[in-house]
Amino acid sequence: MTYQAPLADIGFALKNGAGLGAALDEGLFGELTADVVEAVLAEAGRLAGAVIAPLNRVGDKFGASFKDGVVTTATGWKEAYTTWRNGGWNGLAAPTEWGGQGLPQSLNIACIEMWNAASMAFAVGPLLTIAAIDALHAHGSDVLKRTYLEKLVTGEWTGTMQLTEPQAGSDVGALRTRAERAPDGSYRIKGQKIFITYGEHDLTDNIVHFVLARLPDAPPGTRGISLFLVPKFLPNADGSPGKRNDVRAHSVEHKLGIHGSPTCTMILGDNEGAVGYLIGEENAGMACMFTMMNRARLAIGVQGVGIAEAATQQALAYAHDRKQGRTPGMKATESAPLIAYPDVKRMLLTMRALTQAARAICYATAVALDRSERATDVAARKAAHDRLSLLTPVAKAFSTDIANEVTSLGVQVHGGMGFIEETGAAQLFRDARIAAIYEGTNGIQAIDLVTRKLPLTEAVAAHLAELRSIVDAASASNDPALGWAPLRLKEALDSLTRATHWLIQQNGKDADAALAGASPYLRLFGIATGGCYLARDALAAVRLGDGAAPRLALARFFAENFAVQAHGLERTIVEGAPGLIGAEAALTWYG
Amino acid sequence: MTYQAPLADIGFALKNGAGLGAALDEGLFGELTADVVEAVLAEAGRLAGAVIAPLNRVGDKFGASFKDGVVTTATGWKEAYTTWRNGGWNGLAAPTEWGGQGLPQSLNIACIEMWNAASMAFAVGPLLTIAAIDALHAHGSDVLKRTYLEKLVTGEWTGTMQLTEPQAGSDVGALRTRAERAPDGSYRIKGQKIFITYGEHDLTDNIVHFVLARLPDAPPGTRGISLFLVPKFLPNADGSPGKRNDVRAHSVEHKLGIHGSPTCTMILGDNEGAVGYLIGEENAGMACMFTMMNRARLAIGVQGVGIAEAATQQALAYAHDRKQGRTPGMKATESAPLIAYPDVKRMLLTMRALTQAARAICYATAVALDRSERATDVAARKAAHDRLSLLTPVAKAFSTDIANEVTSLGVQVHGGMGFIEETGAAQLFRDARIAAIYEGTNGIQAIDLVTRKLPLTEAVAAHLAELRSIVDAASASNDPALGWAPLRLKEALDSLTRATHWLIQQNGKDADAALAGASPYLRLFGIATGGCYLARDALAAVRLGDGAAPRLALARFFAENFAVQAHGLERTIVEGAPGLIGAEAALTWYG
Repeated sequence: MTYQAPLADIGFALKNGAGLGAALDEGLFGELTADVVEAVLAEAGRLAGAVIAPLNRVGDKFGASFKDGVVTTATGWKEAYTTWRNGGWNGLAAPTEWGGQGLPQSLNIACIEMWNAASMAFAVGPLLTIAAIDALHAHGSDVLKRTYLEKLVTGEWTGTMQLTEPQAGSDVGALRTRAERAPDGSYRIKGQKIFITYGEHDLTDNIVHFVLARLPDAPPGTRGISLFLVPKFLPNADGSPGKRNDVRAHSVEHKLGIHGSPTCTMILGDNEGAVGYLIGEENAGMACMFTMMNRARLAIGVQGVGIAEAATQQALAYAHDRKQGRTPGMKATESAPLIAYPDVKRMLLTMRALTQAARAICYATAVALDRSERATDVAARKAAHDRLSLLTPVAKAFSTDIANEVTSLGVQVHGGMGFIEETGAAQLFRDARIAAIYEGTNGIQAIDLVTRKLPLTEAVAAHLAELRSIVDAASASNDPALGWAPLRLKEALDSLTRATHWLIQQNGKDADAALAGASPYLRLFGIATGGCYLARDALAAVRLGDGAAPRLALARFFAENFAVQAHGLERTIVEGAPGLIGAEAALTWYG
Repeated sequence: MTYQAPLADIGFALKNGAGLGAALDEGLFGELTADVVEAVLAEAGRLAGAVIAPLNRVGDKFGASFKDGVVTTATGWKEAYTTWRNGGWNGLAAPTEWGGQGLPQSLNIACIEMWNAASMAFAVGPLLTIAAIDALHAHGSDVLKRTYLEKLVTGEWTGTMQLTEPQAGSDVGALRTRAERAPDGSYRIKGQKIFITYGEHDLTDNIVHFVLARLPDAPPGTRGISLFLVPKFLPNADGSPGKRNDVRAHSVEHKLGIHGSPTCTMILGDNEGAVGYLIGEENAGMACMFTMMNRARLAIGVQGVGIAEAATQQALAYAHDRKQGRTPGMKATESAPLIAYPDVKRMLLTMRALTQAARAICYATAVALDRSERATDVAARKAAHDRLSLLTPVAKAFSTDIANEVTSLGVQVHGGMGFIEETGAAQLFRDARIAAIYEGTNGIQAIDLVTRKLPLTEAVAAHLAELRSIVDAASASNDPALGWAPLRLKEALDSLTRATHWLIQQNGKDADAALAGASPYLRLFGIATGGCYLARDALAAVRLGDGAAPRLALARFFAENFAVQAHGLERTIVEGAPGLIGAEAALTWYG
């Protein structure tokens, strides 16, 4: 399977759709021009297609081997990683003072989509390093920054996020890893962590672990968690890797997908305890962790977009190529490509429309991130930050939910061949499956959206107003190519608006009712937002004379096939809670 | 993972829901009593749980090995197969004159659900043997029946269905395997077949292949296909396996799931040609094949039910067992099981409700099959046959679609553990994925429903009337435990009714419009039917005082969360065709 970066789609969605173009025009990124953005995207696309994509199958087949604590990645992975980091891609949006390129976060997000489309197992490693850079940059001491930040920014060393323990998954507060204060101001860490992505590997000569642990006198729960930097090798005075720290991989998991990515059980403190350095304040680790997690959540969202894009490309190519049967009117000697059949068209349009909608949401979130960091006045930064906060759970969960749907359709389009591993469609289906689970399950994203993000009333109102203006513009366009889209999008937005207000009311008085509707609400939010964004992009394409026909067709298809589900979702949210909460009998009784 | 057959659910759905009880009372099965039915179900459940389920993981892990044309199944599989067939399970519903037990097809379908819940890779083999028995019994000559039927009925030998070739998947008419007439009245077959389930194995000492091939003077397409019986070993005069026939397995596929099931590429006629015997008339093979396929399609539907049931059981057990975090009001020292969280409840209720709805549809189809064979008057048999024809594509496609959804939720409920292969949830997710593809993809089922089954106007009208009577009864019950269900089911049925009439109109004039809406229509049909059947079962449970609370809760949940999607689906069907058919631009343009 080959991956060809959809540069026109990505560039259009980023600049015209999500508004990076306007931000460039405003001078938000200094002298940066659209030309440079395009050149970066093109080079990323080339690298993703030519260097990373060819690794995907070998990584799946051979995985990452584990022997005596040493993890060996698949053939070619180390060379590809070296090529990738030598290109400066790891620090694309990182601060220039630490060796980064200081380019827009949104541009980096578009590149992260491409790395993941090419090979999710490969790209998930750097993704966590970038999250670690954010946490260290935001919360680390100057000494720690001087020692580690440039190595992480350049990708010379990689970072890990170590939260999960056997008893502490979604409930991070239940973690038991202990940190003892040492006389020199450092800490000694002992404990066990599971599901640690790239916890051990052979791509770099050091690994910097970011470990959540609990001090002996820490309060219980999440208020007693601290974040520590734990290098695999303690740096020498010259910065080079020195003495081996008391942290090791115990085993590598046998997973459904992303086989090329070593997922490790880590043991800290077999002996004297792993040497760790506090990041931020004692017992304030959750705040640092959320810095890592939020950035990572958006990146996981575009993982979903990337793998959905890869599945769509493959299915589209197969459906054009594979001939089977005849459509009405064909001669007996002819045969039709799969794509000639309406039901196959439906699958392919579903794949493209869902992928583009999720991309639009992720990129909008990424531009909000840029504005939250760079807008000139405080109020604009605050507004952008709230918008980022509101959209992040939707970007993460909607995109990874549709990644499951799209990769499953990718298998289906291939028929029996889709079930054969050599075809590659099955790998995408397996790989994608983790994205709805890690960095906070999609259920947790939905709860976050309803309970912590809907209270951001100004951001919520601004988002609904933005969608309303798109619906109005779609209606005013009177473009027959939009079919029923303007009306169906209006109805979807009405449903979203009503459901939003209903949930805000419940938040104060009936927490369970709000929680019961959280997942369908996130879906409704994603459908209404994605549908409006596709219409916005179609209208912009008409205005700009750039790819209008396909964008109008996709916007229409999405509205007529997905926006129409909004009212049913609204009903489920507003009416469904008593029936769900009261259904104990159907969950205890069995057989 | 263990599987415990849900005997109360299965028994209730079969006897009260699908109407096997009434059929017994009518004497449709002679002296057969409900007690015997219950005893058979209980013994099948015991065998499935104790003998077959323990094989599932080893089959997944070790698959079926292939060396020098010999396939070896995983450790324990041959013994389990022997136990199973010695129990007489293969011939449960087969004719008594050929060693079968002559029990109801619907009872057998319930047992097939259990075998597949225990291990889909194990159970898919016998499923094809049963289909082969049907074809041979319906179309075979007396000589062929005498030679092969009892061996197949007892499971001493197994059967295969050999349709697919590299260029002939969904388009069976494109097959190229050749059959030449031999002087002795037999035929010599040469060709290659792919994706042949249990095409070679070590479970039995002979295998009987049912091969579609084309005579030299056959007309093109499906009108020129003949069905041949091709034994692996040609029987001796005493019936024992004799000379090896010129048919062999060339390789075994590396698949996404059902690893324990050997999926073979078969070569016929390396040398003089495989000896084959005609079943039915020359060039009339499609009719014979449809006998096999239709029976198999219903069985694949309950494969979906079975694997969804297995996933639901596992997720439910985990959600009861796994503690994580606290619900509001809990002490800091306590922790709540996952099942206490509304969003987890939503996933589990979705799993149960979809599984039970699919089961209700499959069992109703199976009882229609029984009536089509056994009803005393011709008109009743014809009506039942039409009902069977109408419901079969829905039973196949709706059940296997929901199997994908339910097994995916099964992974999700387990969180990170779900992605680890040892947990077992991922295997169910992988195994299930083929069921929506084989025996006619679900897209083909939808096309079959719309183009070939909706013209069965009396059966369609009778089905809609049946659902209407359920909706009326639900409304009349005024049972508050049904919540919004009566109203939402009525709306769903209204949508189904309107969409049905619209599609019937299109069938005559705009074939593409009908085809464009086929998949959403099948979903709508499944949701409306499944929702009504759950309500019917709940009302019956109230009446009988048997498990009313859980059944009312599930019927309500289904209506408030799935029936509410009916109107959106109707819109997509009725409005969406022009937007889909006209979306060429979005499928050719790329990048």
